[in-house]
Order: sequence, then C-alpha cells, then structure tokens
Amino acid sequence: MNPTYDANAASCPLPLRDYPTIVLAHGGGGRLMAELIEHLFLAEFADETLSAKTDAAVLPLPTHAKGRLALTTDCHVVRPLFFPGGSLAELAVHGTINDLAMSGAQPLYLTVGFILEEGLPIAVLAELVRRLAQAARQAGMRVVAGDTKVVERGHGDGCFITTSGVGVVAAGIDLGPQLIRPGDVVLVNGPIGEHGMAVLSVREGLEFESPIVSDCRALHLEVDRLLRAVPNTRFLRDPTRGGVAAVLHEVAQAARWEIALDEAAIPVRAEVRAACEILGLDPLYVANEGKLIAIVPPEAESSALTALGPQARRIGVVRAGSVGRVVARTPFGTERLIPLPLGEQLPRIC
Amino acid sequence: MNPTYDANAASCPLPLRDYPTIVLAHGGGGRLMAELIEHLFLAEFADETLSAKTDAAVLPLPTHAKGRLALTTDCHVVRPLFFPGGSLAELAVHGTINDLAMSGAQPLYLTVGFILEEGLPIAVLAELVRRLAQAARQAGMRVVAGDTKVVERGHGDGCFITTSGVGVVAAGIDLGPQLIRPGDVVLVNGPIGEHGMAVLSVREGLEFESPIVSDCRALHLEVDRLLRAVPNTRFLRDPTRGGVAAVLHEVAQAARWEIALDEAAIPVRAEVRAACEILGLDPLYVANEGKLIAIVPPEAESSALTALGPQARRIGVVRAGSVGRVVARTPFGTERLIPLPLGEQLPRIC
Repeated sequence: MNPTYDANAASCPLPLRDYPTIVLAHGGGGRLMAELIEHLFLAEFADETLSAKTDAAVLPLPTHAKGRLALTTDCHVVRPLFFPGGSLAELAVHGTINDLAMSGAQPLYLTVGFILEEGLPIAVLAELVRRLAQAARQAGMRVVAGDTKVVERGHGDGCFITTSGVGVVAAGIDLGPQLIRPGDVVLVNGPIGEHGMAVLSVREGLEFESPIVSDCRALHLEVDRLLRAVPNTRFLRDPTRGGVAAVLHEVAQAARWEIALDEAAIPVRAEVRAACEILGLDPLYVANEGKLIAIVPPEAESSALTALGPQARRIGVVRAGSVGRVVARTPFGTERLIPLPLGEQLPRIC
Repeated sequence: MNPTYDANAASCPLPLRDYPTIVLAHGGGGRLMAELIEHLFLAEFADETLSAKTDAAVLPLPTHAKGRLALTTDCHVVRPLFFPGGSLAELAVHGTINDLAMSGAQPLYLTVGFILEEGLPIAVLAELVRRLAQAARQAGMRVVAGDTKVVERGHGDGCFITTSGVGVVAAGIDLGPQLIRPGDVVLVNGPIGEHGMAVLSVREGLEFESPIVSDCRALHLEVDRLLRAVPNTRFLRDPTRGGVAAVLHEVAQAARWEIALDEAAIPVRAEVRAACEILGLDPLYVANEGKLIAIVPPEAESSALTALGPQARRIGVVRAGSVGRVVARTPFGTERLIPLPLGEQLPRIC
C-alpha cells in the first residue's frame, strides 16, 4: 500500500467502501478518484511505474530490442460484461496481446483507459480490474499507465475499456500481405466462431446442451512457436469482428490475390454449428478471440501445423484468380463466393 | 487513396455518403467499417503505417533514442463536443502530448480509439477526425494505430475518444517529485481556469462580455525550451481535472513536503475570475488544458520564467512544514488551507 495514502485517509470521511457504486466524482480528479486509483487500480496492477502516478510512464526498452516498436489500440464495449469463458477484461488484455503477436511482436507494456457509467457497482469494476491484472500478469505484460473517466447515467453502458499495447519486434521478423504468393497455404489454429456464439447465447438467453464457451485467450506463445518453426511465415491475423471472412477479404485485397477455401476443412465445433444453424448465421462471419489465420509457404505447411497444435487445420490456398476475391469449395465440389459482410451480424461482440 | 479500395467500391452499393449518421454496422468489421476507415480515417491521418491496416503498427525508434520510452493514455468524454477554443479532438491530442511532455518526452506516435454512439452525424465525426489529424500534424506526431466501436443509441454519448501516446525521453532528462527540495519555487506558465470555465459557460448557456476561450494547446515546445534553460527542473505537471489544487496536493504528498502558495500571485483573467465568482467556484480547482506547473530550484527561477514566456509567474514555494499540505497566503497576510476536493466541481470537462 502506498505510504502516502494514510495521511489522506486520516482526513477523509469517505473511504471507497462507503460508495457501493461509481459516482461522477470518481472521475473528477479529486479525493474520490485518488481513492479509486489507490485502492483498486494500483493495488491490483502492482506496478512500480504505474504507482509513481506520473502523467506518462517512463520505461526502459529491453536491451535485446535492436528491432522495431509495435503499437496497437483497441476499444472494448462487449455486452454483457461477463460471458462464458471470459469478460470485458480478458477480452481487452488478450485482444491487445493478440494484435501485437500478429505483427510478430513480443508484448511488453499495456495501458488501460476506463470509461465508467455512473451507477456501475464498484464490485463489478473491482472484478474487472482483478481479471485485467491477472490476464496481463499471466502474459508477462506490465500495466504501466491508465486513465478513468465517469459519464452520467444513461450516457455510457457500465464500463468501456480501451487498451493500448507496446511490444518489440525482433530484428529479422517480417510479416505482411505483400509477402504472400500464389500457392501459399491458409491455416487456422482451431475451431472457429466460439467467441461470438458464446456472447450471443448468453445475451439472447439461448441454452444449448453443452454451453458454448468463448475461445478468448492470448496467442503470443503460439505465434512465437510458429515463427521459430517457420521463420518465413508470410502473414498472421486474428479473425475477431467480421470473423474469418472479413480477415480473408482484407488480406486477399492487400495481397492482390484470390483465396480459395475448402469449406469441409474449416473446423467448427458441433455445438457452434448447431447454434449457427438455428440462428441462420455463418460461422465464417462470427468473431473469434483466440484464433489466428496464418499464411505460410506450401513447403512449411506441416511444420506450421505442428507448431500451431493438434486443432490446427489447413483451410485454403492462395491463387492467382481475381484480385481480392474469396471463394469456398463446397462439399459438393462447386465454388461459392464469400462476400464481405456490411457489418458484424452481432453488435458489441468485443 | 488506397488502390485496393476501387475493387471493393465497384461491388458496394452503399458508399459512406449515403449514411448521414453512424449505424451499428460501422463498428462491425465489415464493408461499412472498411469504408469509414478508408474514406475518413486513412484519408485524414495520411500515415503510411496506419494505411497498412495491420493489427499493430510496427515502427522504428529514432536513432537518437538512447533514452527511455514514455507511454501515456487518456480517455476523453468532454461535453459538448465543441467549445470555444477547441473540441474533443484537440483535447485528445493536446492532452496526450502534454502528458508526454510533462515526463520530459518528445512526442512521437499517437493511437486513437473511437467509441461512437449510433446516430452520431458522420459530418460531426469527420470534423473531429479532421481536427485530430491537424493537431497531431502540427505537433509532428504520427497517428499510427486506431480502433472504432459503435454502441447502441442511449448507451454512449456521441463520441468518446481514447488516445495513447508514445514518446522518447532523451538520456539525462530526469523529472520527479522525489527531486523536490524545500526552497524550490512553484511556477505556472499563465492564467488558470480557462478550459473549465469555457466548457462550463457554453454548457450552461452563460454569456459573459468577453467570451471565455479554452487554453487547450500543446506544451511540448515550451517544455523543451524550459528543459534546455533549466536542465535541473525538478517536476512538471499539467493541471487538468481538479485544477492546480489537485496537482499541488499530489506533488506535495509524493515529495513529502508542504507547498505554500501566494494567492495574490496566481494569474487569473478578469473574465474567468468574474465567472468563477458568479458561480461560486475557485479557479484553483478549475481544469486547464494548456497550462503547466513547474517546480525548479530557487536559483533557476528567472531563467525558467523567461523560458516559459511573459505570462509565467512564480506562485509559491516548497517548504518543510506538514507532509502533503497545501496552503495559500491570502492578500490579508493570513494562511488558508487548500483542501483536496472530493471530485471535480464540473463533470465531463475533458
């Protein structure tokens, strides 16, 4: 506990526990905000630099960082805040780690911004902060800077979290759609559509025989294994909003080639497929939070699949064809066009 | 314009201009989001790395960066979005630059996260993005990563912006409350309370003879001048939420000394003082967005004031006294305690 706190508490008639919900003054730069920071954020995140409470965190770059800086940001607005397999907090941390990992970066530092709605129970915020801190710690990321704002009841939605991440890309690692060539193979590290269907099922009160659990998790170690096994990996991307279809569209356009999927090869768990069928959704468009699409040269296919683990599959190939087009070979041997959707089928999935 | 866009547009019946307001699908990872990114964000921010649309921006560190990394984040929820002297956009950019500058860092890279409410006019978003891009460009900062989420009508408030900033602190620059010693002088670079009163006056429909304009601006060049003139500057902080009073409390506690202000020396413009008197507010607690508090050794006072410009004033001194206490000598020669407020007098000021 920060030794400066006691002096303040002595003259403070209103400790954190007497406020069961967030009030506007918790974002006001005064004593209530100081209490929130001290008792909740600094206690959980337990980072020396964060606890110094400077305007900006001043940090060393690791000595092996001959490489480049990786920088990413994501706003998280998922509803509900807690869902099978995770919460807004894990989503925020893992999402940022995964964005860094997809550029080949080792994750280092995390910043966290909270936009809280007046009336949010402090116990809910405390649970989110605890999970955020745990997820960051598990990945070896330090939470080094943060901010909290409070908006009036009816002008927010409980809690929004924006995370930014800094990582380092080691010298020699180079990934990008411009490296993709016809003949390259498209891999996925496991069954798709779980995050979106997990959130949807709890939101809509749907019950399935076996509950669908979000795949929300950090992928940096998996990426590390892949890049060691296949240093000439062309491209990595995690298929979140818009699902696998949106990622493949983006990469097909950026690479200026066509992508041909083998529909029968795309792994989808039975319960996800069943839920999608009931609701008329296509798993290709449903969000994932612990999956990655890797594009590797054909000769690296088997080493890449080994590195990505037993659930990984080859789901397609890159070919000349039409620039930016994505097609799928159906189980009947015909090809269907996979269009880019107008928007996610489900809002506020991440 | 990105050459990959045309292919998409050819098969797209719904260009951006046909949607006068933000809809949920603009945050959905599909075609509408791609259009928003292409036409609005990439066009305005015009950054090669951003335009590559990778999950994380991969960036060089400047070769003179023998020093350390500075990292900061801030959520911005000001209401209304536009006010005399600025908007949410300038606030977001200048706020982040100033947080970096207060740690002695040179600002380099900016990330921007938008949380948009369904129904926000696209013209409003476009104006905010234009101002964001301009403010960043003026300060030589590159916008290198971003994210957009859309929440349902009634679950947000038009637009929230979270910015994170990365800078580099040159070797040899060291600032912090632990360096402060009794006898050090407390300086401010100009009149206080303008941002808070500008926002309040437009929000409450108050009219004063001369309108109060926010002091919102970037301070990195001013800090650079100060650190060159006074390399042994002890401490810098911009008095935003909670005003000068909150900053002095924080530094007095962190430094473990007392701060004594000279009330008559604190610069406040006549119109701000008048507005504060009418509304029963104390300018010491009102937010600023273009002011800094500098604490320097006594022998550096005049060089520091010169570096900070003609509006800068010495407003107090550090002394032994009670740890963490802030007092002000009134014009009558007595001393009054300056307490830490419970919260900002005005919510959603930044």
